[in-house]
Amino acid sequence: MRLQVIEMKLHNFNSGPSILPLPVLEQASNAIHNFNNTGLSILEIGHRTSHFQEVLNDAIASVKRLMQLDDQYEVLFLHGGATTQFMQVPMNLLDDDQIAAYCDNGIWGNKALKEASLFGNIVVAASSADKKHTYIPKELVFPETANYLHITTNNTVEGTQWHDYPTTTIPLIGDMSSDIFSRQINFKKFSLIYAGAQKNMGAAGVNMLVIKKDILGKIQRRIPTIMNYQKHIEAGSLMNTPPVFAVYVSMLTLKWIEEEGGLVEMGRRSKERASLLYNTLDSLPFFKTYVAKEDRSEMNAVFFIEDENLQNLFLDECKQAGFIGVKGYRTVGGIRVSMYNALPLSSVQAMVDLMQSFASKHA
Amino acid sequence: MRLQVIEMKLHNFNSGPSILPLPVLEQASNAIHNFNNTGLSILEIGHRTSHFQEVLNDAIASVKRLMQLDDQYEVLFLHGGATTQFMQVPMNLLDDDQIAAYCDNGIWGNKALKEASLFGNIVVAASSADKKHTYIPKELVFPETANYLHITTNNTVEGTQWHDYPTTTIPLIGDMSSDIFSRQINFKKFSLIYAGAQKNMGAAGVNMLVIKKDILGKIQRRIPTIMNYQKHIEAGSLMNTPPVFAVYVSMLTLKWIEEEGGLVEMGRRSKERASLLYNTLDSLPFFKTYVAKEDRSEMNAVFFIEDENLQNLFLDECKQAGFIGVKGYRTVGGIRVSMYNALPLSSVQAMVDLMQSFASKHA
Repeated sequence: MRLQVIEMKLHNFNSGPSILPLPVLEQASNAIHNFNNTGLSILEIGHRTSHFQEVLNDAIASVKRLMQLDDQYEVLFLHGGATTQFMQVPMNLLDDDQIAAYCDNGIWGNKALKEASLFGNIVVAASSADKKHTYIPKELVFPETANYLHITTNNTVEGTQWHDYPTTTIPLIGDMSSDIFSRQINFKKFSLIYAGAQKNMGAAGVNMLVIKKDILGKIQRRIPTIMNYQKHIEAGSLMNTPPVFAVYVSMLTLKWIEEEGGLVEMGRRSKERASLLYNTLDSLPFFKTYVAKEDRSEMNAVFFIEDENLQNLFLDECKQAGFIGVKGYRTVGGIRVSMYNALPLSSVQAMVDLMQSFASKHA
Repeated sequence: MRLQVIEMKLHNFNSGPSILPLPVLEQASNAIHNFNNTGLSILEIGHRTSHFQEVLNDAIASVKRLMQLDDQYEVLFLHGGATTQFMQVPMNLLDDDQIAAYCDNGIWGNKALKEASLFGNIVVAASSADKKHTYIPKELVFPETANYLHITTNNTVEGTQWHDYPTTTIPLIGDMSSDIFSRQINFKKFSLIYAGAQKNMGAAGVNMLVIKKDILGKIQRRIPTIMNYQKHIEAGSLMNTPPVFAVYVSMLTLKWIEEEGGLVEMGRRSKERASLLYNTLDSLPFFKTYVAKEDRSEMNAVFFIEDENLQNLFLDECKQAGFIGVKGYRTVGGIRVSMYNALPLSSVQAMVDLMQSFASKHA
């Protein structure tokens, strides 16, 4: 089935859930028949068996290796998506009378700060709302008494990405849902990292969290058990039945990243894909973008064609060419090309070929 | 692979995640290769595509047909497990100065009431804690001013099940995680039903909720968006990226239930399995149970052998015979035989055969 697909040259530019590596899909499909020769489906095994414990251990070990984390950090796999963390982060780290700082640099970061305002006092450290979040603010202002500073490291909708993280004396928290494991960075700059898995590291339905333990236990609020990071750490991500299959797919994807050469290689591929796309964009004035050049995302290229009819025609041609998920986010419009870890360079090549031929025909 | 398994006579008595119908596993496995001839994996499709919308619509329509619900009810598929609902129910339905009534009739119901106490005043309407939750209390006492009454309809750990639901003038809420869709009942007795999917209706990682709309919007608390039932209803379960694959497996399982004859047929099979097991138990005084006869669960039979060495030997023989998941819950011990929708009668027959031969050898 899959081979046929490749012959059809289907190119998956989905923004998330998005393309996954073929070996991951093959193993996942097989595990639904017979998981690790248990004779049972991965969907039928108990979560407190050694079988699943091994899956979870492997996933956690991969994360720790890829991020080069020491024992000050814990790795959790929890139910939900990043949106769940918009609530769970302040619930665990912010009391009603305390302050947290948020960068308002994208639609998701903005949602995060709005949710946090239910739990304490929010200071906007910087905002790019004046230009519809098309750049990353460089000057951050916030009180040093704030419990933490929250940023969204990559903005899927607007196509911007932090290339230099702020240095802070207070804990830095990153929503890395859309650029996690796409390159080597200094993860230790962060005290808490969270990511919905469905872009670079697996299937929808699970959150990966990395928590520096010293930030916990500092607030007075009584936290509901299922939301309590400390309790999840004590239970080793097994407080309740976890999303077994989604954790399994994350484990497979993490293993694939390591086998392919780790974050250095992921970063090289990411740069290669993004350069090809953005160089083409820059060479074709027919395509426009509002995104500040220095803040362009390697994950999501967001651009447009001024003539709306031509833009619709381009999107139609993308569809006919087997390009999936190229339409911009509903509130932004335009064109969005998402280029996550599993996207082959050949897919970006196919996209830039179409961009070039379309521009030369219609410019 | 699977055929080989059947030849090995593997019998899956797991308490959850548990056995799923073979056609469901086959379709799920295929969909990971190529979902509905899209050329994409179910793990790679966008959740806002018509492809996934159809999956979600089909799942919701199945639930409404199976439960015979009218438009007063909404069906949601949300991230998390039943434990998430222990918090989410009171967060949505109980203000700090109000009262909710809970039946303390099992380990999970007890956890539910403890979580609810973070959000308001909890009255224990009845408790079976005096006999380690081995029976269902029949006399319930609670103020008519309580916002709702919460029960756990089947107690997976203790092996008890409500066979007649209480009649109330206040909203009745049921955690049906472990007996949902196992028989025809009057679902309209309930104002809210929730169930983690991983027993009778799918894979771990998704909650199914049925909500009578008139219970919402009656409290003052500011509810975090991702926890807000009303907002999820407005967003049609698509507020954020849902657990796509888990919803898909639920849809397949619900369709299987309907194709097999619906809840009447599920109830017939359930009775048949449970009768075979309990009749054998009653005929063999060698096996003991503390569970009150009239409250026995059709889903989970919990019993034990007085001599611990013999019990361990029995569990060993179960293992050798290819019986999975027969060891009792860690806090209860003993033997537990879970018999969910997808368990064939032949598996129960294999179990009672072993029980009989073991008893005749060791009694």
